[in-house]
Amino acid sequence: MADFTHLDEAGSARMVNVGEKPVTPREAVAEACVKMEAATAESIRENQTKKGEVLQVARLAGIMAAKRTDELIPLCHGLPLESIDVAFTFEDATTLRITATAKVAAKTGVEMEAMTAASVAALTVYDMCKAIDRGMEIRQVRLMKKSGGKSGTYERQPEN
Amino acid sequence: MADFTHLDEAGSARMVNVGEKPVTPREAVAEACVKMEAATAESIRENQTKKGEVLQVARLAGIMAAKRTDELIPLCHGLPLESIDVAFTFEDATTLRITATAKVAAKTGVEMEAMTAASVAALTVYDMCKAIDRGMEIRQVRLMKKSGGKSGTYERQPEN
Amino acid sequence: MADFTHLDEAGSARMVNVGEKPVTPREAVAEACVKMEAATAESIRENQTKKGEVLQVARLAGIMAAKRTDELIPLCHGLPLESIDVAFTFEDATTLRITATAKVAAKTGVEMEAMTAASVAALTVYDMCKAIDRGMEIRQVRLMKKSGGKSGTYERQPEN
Amino acid sequence: MADFTHLDEAGSARMVNVGEKPVTPREAVAEACVKMEAATAESIRENQTKKGEVLQVARLAGIMAAKRTDELIPLCHGLPLESIDVAFTFEDATTLRITATAKVAAKTGVEMEAMTAASVAALTVYDMCKAIDRGMEIRQVRLMKKSGGKSGTYERQPEN
Amino acid sequence: MADFTHLDEAGSARMVNVGEKPVTPREAVAEACVKMEAATAESIRENQTKKGEVLQVARLAGIMAAKRTDELIPLCHGLPLESIDVAFTFEDATTLRITATAKVAAKTGVEMEAMTAASVAALTVYDMCKAIDRGMEIRQVRLMKKSGGKSGTYERQPEN
Amino acid sequence: MADFTHLDEAGSARMVNVGEKPVTPREAVAEACVKMEAATAESIRENQTKKGEVLQVARLAGIMAAKRTDELIPLCHGLPLESIDVAFTFEDATTLRITATAKVAAKTGVEMEAMTAASVAALTVYDMCKAIDRGMEIRQVRLMKKSGGKSGTYERQPEN
Repeated sequence: MADFTHLDEAGSARMVNVGEKPVTPREAVAEACVKMEAATAESIRENQTKKGEVLQVARLAGIMAAKRTDELIPLCHGLPLESIDVAFTFEDATTLRITATAKVAAKTGVEMEAMTAASVAALTVYDMCKAIDRGMEIRQVRLMKKSGGKSGTYERQPEN
Repeated sequence: MADFTHLDEAGSARMVNVGEKPVTPREAVAEACVKMEAATAESIRENQTKKGEVLQVARLAGIMAAKRTDELIPLCHGLPLESIDVAFTFEDATTLRITATAKVAAKTGVEMEAMTAASVAALTVYDMCKAIDRGMEIRQVRLMKKSGGKSGTYERQPEN
Repeated sequence: MADFTHLDEAGSARMVNVGEKPVTPREAVAEACVKMEAATAESIRENQTKKGEVLQVARLAGIMAAKRTDELIPLCHGLPLESIDVAFTFEDATTLRITATAKVAAKTGVEMEAMTAASVAALTVYDMCKAIDRGMEIRQVRLMKKSGGKSGTYERQPEN
Repeated sequence: MADFTHLDEAGSARMVNVGEKPVTPREAVAEACVKMEAATAESIRENQTKKGEVLQVARLAGIMAAKRTDELIPLCHGLPLESIDVAFTFEDATTLRITATAKVAAKTGVEMEAMTAASVAALTVYDMCKAIDRGMEIRQVRLMKKSGGKSGTYERQPEN
Repeated sequence: MADFTHLDEAGSARMVNVGEKPVTPREAVAEACVKMEAATAESIRENQTKKGEVLQVARLAGIMAAKRTDELIPLCHGLPLESIDVAFTFEDATTLRITATAKVAAKTGVEMEAMTAASVAALTVYDMCKAIDRGMEIRQVRLMKKSGGKSGTYERQPEN
Repeated sequence: MADFTHLDEAGSARMVNVGEKPVTPREAVAEACVKMEAATAESIRENQTKKGEVLQVARLAGIMAAKRTDELIPLCHGLPLESIDVAFTFEDATTLRITATAKVAAKTGVEMEAMTAASVAALTVYDMCKAIDRGMEIRQVRLMKKSGGKSGTYERQPEN
């Protein structure tokens, strides 16, 4: 079962030994989309105009969750995050795109921190809006880019 | 801004007062899908056959995250979860479906616990497999069903 | 040492047994003040006008900390908070007043949750502004009111 | 809104990027005072004489909270604390002074860890004594000194 | 695999559904022993006489860990602990006995909270003394008594 | 009270200052045994054969607890764990041996992380099996080996 870095030869879970790896600067960008009713998107936009806090709460939730990634994802290493930010844009009338960017200087990558920030921000948007639109759906939680480390740079190719 | 239950009239975030609501049995079912390469799906399946632990780790991660939902989602109430389980099925050659079911007797609903369990289980599958398939994508994190409470039963309608 | 409810006869710390107490509705209001330079207060006010997030971040921090009071204060019982909110007002040109209100139906009081929310919100204001005003000071963290339970209602008397 | 380091140009909260900053030794000293009835202070003193644990519990609470500062204060970086201690002195018949000292070698300062330790120790004193003196007040939570980092040394000037 | 309540028919982990069980008063007593050099025991005893804090720190650690049992033990339910205390006695010249008693009114038992409190208190004693006695050993972490719930009262029989 | 590194001259608890110590590679191995009925051991073994998850859950619990050692053990420093693994072997018909190995490059040792992983894994085995064997006992939680740091290598001597 050599395929899975998080499993030993017997298939048992382990936290990969990163002791031999050098500390290098790492960056990862992940995104998530929240698909909603047009009326819900309209309400969020209007809320932003009126200084409401729907997206602010979601942003904070994403940032704070990123710092606790290693408590949530069992085999993740704890990383001293140097920066994390979470941004929102409406892609179209019914889709909110969330982009999370995480940076660290560490022996292992910061992808899971970015993925977790985007996911938890999306879950928080769901929580804030579920009373008006229970059918919202979180889509396309995925890694867009990462750099640093032995495996080098990855950039998601546009689908077509 | 009466639309958003988590905001007061001034648009400020708050934890909704559930003090007046009766304690009733609540249940929620949420799901998430992980889209992957066929070879990755094959590896996970083979891993299960050989008693590897990819999905076991993801299941535990989902269960444990559900218990901490109120630490992750800023305006969620803490709930005394009575039961949570997380199940996996391969829907097709490249799609892993994760279903999380949460139950509680409480003054407020248990949807976010089920959504969080499904999301964190999916993130953990990503973490376990990202070294072999960085392009995996989490899709369709959504509520399938919920019952209990004043708003009654919700069941997601099949799309067509 | 019968004076201290959190100590036994030998003076050892313990979590008080609340098993015999009835569940009653409880409420507590606490406040904290942050004393700052007039220019800092001006910046925060201006920031609010421009939809900045200084106080939003502090409010969320207070709400989230209240839910974890029993992890911070060693002998506090875990309580199923029913509601918590945190409000800000500028009392004068250099004083920001933070008011936290917590509610629960429980066997013990909710004072520490309100005190913790006000304190952590104040610490967060300090963190957000310390680069421009390191000398800020948190003052008057105190209980303003509490109701419910055997000891009944308490209301802080105005000093004079 | 360039004034607030924790906000970007649009006023959105972010965790400041400290990636470019060098690791330097940092130290911070913060304090908090608890104002109480003379009889309460007397009870605490007597308790200490009899090996009671009021202040011991508060000290531990402060130390443990300092290690979790980044979970409480939303935009704080996680720091590998090298040392933290919390000391108590009665300044006069009704005032308990709490002094917290934190040290770290890091890319950012350790002020919030010291402030958090002092605050949570003070909250714990309140919790331990509230049954006998509900009117106690936490005052003067403030930074006394900090050193290290680009902004150099700060020392609070005595007021007069 | 009906033997294991925490596994379903397929052998998968789950949090047992306690929804149908009535809330009843529960109590559990667990203990742990720390075996050490006579000189270490002597140092702890002397430390207690001089108001040192070795055992105080261990007691607090046990109490605080009990409140977080459901975060540590993956399939444990969160319980609203009503009381927890941790006591120490030297059984002989080289054995420190730690007894933890936990109480709750809940749908499921409180054994794990008592076991966790005793274990973490013992680990903390080890941590406090390891620089002088690295060979210390934790023994006999075990349930002494439990009452409440459908399975009724259990009392450990003396071995002989 | 110079004996206790975690206490200052007055006997007060403190987090030892490790600022002057160099970062060196550290490793620690700890173990714990769970003594059980032969029938219980048989059930666990059979469960493993059938791909049940008793030991998998315990392993994950140990790994995840190791990452939070500094939250549990009050005076422990937070460490950026590089690797942790937890292994199980049946020593005889009634004894399950748990071995935890932790690695880090840090200014202080990683013994408590290994001890905590072994303890929490053992507690989880107890939790998983307590419905069929309430009398199980955790024994011999102890450090087997540690290396790195000023105090050098330690290896437990076999008893006889």
